[in-house]
Amino acid sequence: MNGYYVVLITVPVDKGEELSNFIVENKLGACVNVVPEVNSVYWWKGNIEKDKEALLVVKTSAQKFKELLEKVKSVHPYTVPEIIALPILAGNPDYLNWIEDSLK
Amino acid sequence: MNGYYVVLITVPVDKGEELSNFIVENKLGACVNVVPEVNSVYWWKGNIEKDKEALLVVKTSAQKFKELLEKVKSVHPYTVPEIIALPILAGNPDYLNWIEDSLK
Amino acid sequence: MNGYYVVLITVPVDKGEELSNFIVENKLGACVNVVPEVNSVYWWKGNIEKDKEALLVVKTSAQKFKELLEKVKSVHPYTVPEIIALPILAGNPDYLNWIEDSLK
Repeated sequence: MNGYYVVLITVPVDKGEELSNFIVENKLGACVNVVPEVNSVYWWKGNIEKDKEALLVVKTSAQKFKELLEKVKSVHPYTVPEIIALPILAGNPDYLNWIEDSLK
Repeated sequence: MNGYYVVLITVPVDKGEELSNFIVENKLGACVNVVPEVNSVYWWKGNIEKDKEALLVVKTSAQKFKELLEKVKSVHPYTVPEIIALPILAGNPDYLNWIEDSLK
Repeated sequence: MNGYYVVLITVPVDKGEELSNFIVENKLGACVNVVPEVNSVYWWKGNIEKDKEALLVVKTSAQKFKELLEKVKSVHPYTVPEIIALPILAGNPDYLNWIEDSLK
């Protein structure tokens, strides 16, 4: 499987840095941008909940996604964490190669 | 039509919470993250305009998108609102199921 | 090539406004939202680096991407800048037309 993904992950506000370090240190992603605080509104067990979260924007390869999914789920504080992948359709070739090299 | 989308919507800074509540309450999206303040630069009627906006990151199903589009347009303060859908190519299965269940 | 993209670009925190103006003034994008400050973690030359960056969310056409890529690379302060394109799969028709018209 080739190609590259932008993966979106939300976490509690105080866990953003810890999880982004975990992802990069374990070569699950080449780079993570953490949007420090977003206001989230969502359904949970029949109620509408509101929380402040951090939004992680992870750049990785399609090949790494399965491993990223399993390992992030294993350390994430939520039972059903948001871990969703958007396809990168085109990009700076040097940057895409850098993603590849950073994940080796 | 199956599949899931990340939908991006921009609104005036003070309308972010109101619109995200509207989207979740009406089951147009399972979850919305609101980036409270972004600096926007854009063309409008031949001039470059600058504004502070809120950026909504909506997680929904492809099936719901048409309804989301029509209903958000009906309450959005802009005449030509940004409502654009990015495809979720892969994700935490439990989370994608949660999106589905939350929209029933 | 038809279609529309959301293009993500990261820059040093103090360059966000300047680059977003450059992109819109030169009709490389119809609109840019600048997330003023994200915390970035990434691999660089074998080390994990941490920086504060601005994240640009550019809305443009697929047709314009090549020109956007070359011109942004020519003014970007990084040697290997993140310039990556995500496909817009569906959207408010009036807004997509507005993108088209704004880039003429």
